Amino acid sequence: VAGPSILVNGEPGETVSVLDRGFQYGDGIFETIRVADGRPDFWERHMARLASGCERLRLPAPDGDLLRCEAGQLCEASRAGVLKIVVTRGIGGRGYRLPEKADPTRVVALFAAPGYPESFVREGVRARFCRARLSDQPMLAGLKHLNRLDQVMARGEWSDETIQEGLMCDAANNMIEGTMTNVFIVRGGALHTPDLSRCGVLGIMRGIVLDLAQQLGIETEIRAIPRDEMKSAAEIFLTNSVIGIWPVRELEGRDYRLGDVTRKLIEVLARLATD
Amino acid sequence: VAGPSILVNGEPGETVSVLDRGFQYGDGIFETIRVADGRPDFWERHMARLASGCERLRLPAPDGDLLRCEAGQLCEASRAGVLKIVVTRGIGGRGYRLPEKADPTRVVALFAAPGYPESFVREGVRARFCRARLSDQPMLAGLKHLNRLDQVMARGEWSDETIQEGLMCDAANNMIEGTMTNVFIVRGGALHTPDLSRCGVLGIMRGIVLDLAQQLGIETEIRAIPRDEMKSAAEIFLTNSVIGIWPVRELEGRDYRLGDVTRKLIEVLARLATD
Repeated sequence: VAGPSILVNGEPGETVSVLDRGFQYGDGIFETIRVADGRPDFWERHMARLASGCERLRLPAPDGDLLRCEAGQLCEASRAGVLKIVVTRGIGGRGYRLPEKADPTRVVALFAAPGYPESFVREGVRARFCRARLSDQPMLAGLKHLNRLDQVMARGEWSDETIQEGLMCDAANNMIEGTMTNVFIVRGGALHTPDLSRCGVLGIMRGIVLDLAQQLGIETEIRAIPRDEMKSAAEIFLTNSVIGIWPVRELEGRDYRLGDVTRKLIEVLARLATD
Repeated sequence: VAGPSILVNGEPGETVSVLDRGFQYGDGIFETIRVADGRPDFWERHMARLASGCERLRLPAPDGDLLRCEAGQLCEASRAGVLKIVVTRGIGGRGYRLPEKADPTRVVALFAAPGYPESFVREGVRARFCRARLSDQPMLAGLKHLNRLDQVMARGEWSDETIQEGLMCDAANNMIEGTMTNVFIVRGGALHTPDLSRCGVLGIMRGIVLDLAQQLGIETEIRAIPRDEMKSAAEIFLTNSVIGIWPVRELEGRDYRLGDVTRKLIEVLARLATD
């Protein structure tokens, strides 16, 4: 398998400095973007989140036109792939103190598409609960930052290839998200998704799905969802920018049906993506 | 200022792969070790913590003899410095899944000594409280892992050069630690330091100080310390492997005296270090 094509600060490269604060502290953020027919999907939304993440981390945001140009350079020949953009606070000395004038590191990398079978969207996936809990940290909640040990530890809990995702709770046993996805449930025809003000990533696809639901007249609610409530959900699905929407057909041995709300959202999203 | 001398997997180098999980996820741990007269201080304690951290992260620990050899190679000519050892889960593909057989990345770097004035030990330092709270995460508590955004954000709160440390609380307003130090208070002649079972780093110098206190017959207590209790502390001091012990002479405008317990511990530690 060929490795990704990578630009580091605009130049083809494969390395960053050992002294980069991304490596030393996870001091940075990233975006993961689906690429189809040479174009990154939902570019504006990703750029808006990147800018807002940089602001929250007090990190100078990379120039949008420059990023678009670099992304375009990598993606133009790609029929299907995943673009990952990483922005860190750049090289620093030893110690946490922020450099007076940060010179951020910008990595743009195009990976091969993961090649998930189409059945994951059409028929759904199997999921489990993870024992690993998400860190409670309102200061960083919502951000797609580089401190991802919670997810690494959670993903390390299973190796069964037939289980596609592990769901994570907070310390209070509220359902928050999957290791790489946001989670939605359907109850009484309405769409519910966890509140992410204390932990979790505000996924781009989560935002798109909430917007689509609104356009379709589906009621949406963002709130604390106790883990036990998952059992009585009529439908469950997972979202992220690369997979779109995956219905959950089985969670911890319990079967769920691929219901009307999930089906409708998948259909509308597919039209959106091919427009 | 000359940069550090660095060995990456045993070879002189300054870079790691963009795909290193240390850079992508902060998936690794580190040690920061004081070097004096060509020798890393308290080597065995640091190696024991590194091994235990690797075990908790399910990361193959680097060979101890190899690390000692590499550290020795860098340190032998150094009168005073700081050795930083970073171990990550190495290069991985896109996604959190643990590689079936991890090939860890090992970075050993010798930095110049920070050159803090001696007055910090003799007279004490000024400290503040940070608004940034520590993430609540028992799964990672105690570890010196590479997810350090809490500390980065906290350190970004002040630029006043006369303030040497910022103290951080958890969400429940318990005092936990400084951005780069552990914290101790003295009350009624006894030494109290925060419980770190939900957040914080189990500092090597913290362990040494607790051991010294025991040897000196000073009562020690590890417990939740509400932030407000700091006001009534008879003595406060900070510890880490590089600074040793820094008395706090001022915290948030309130003065503290350099008392007998702190003084005694500084004295005994100095003897230990020169033995």
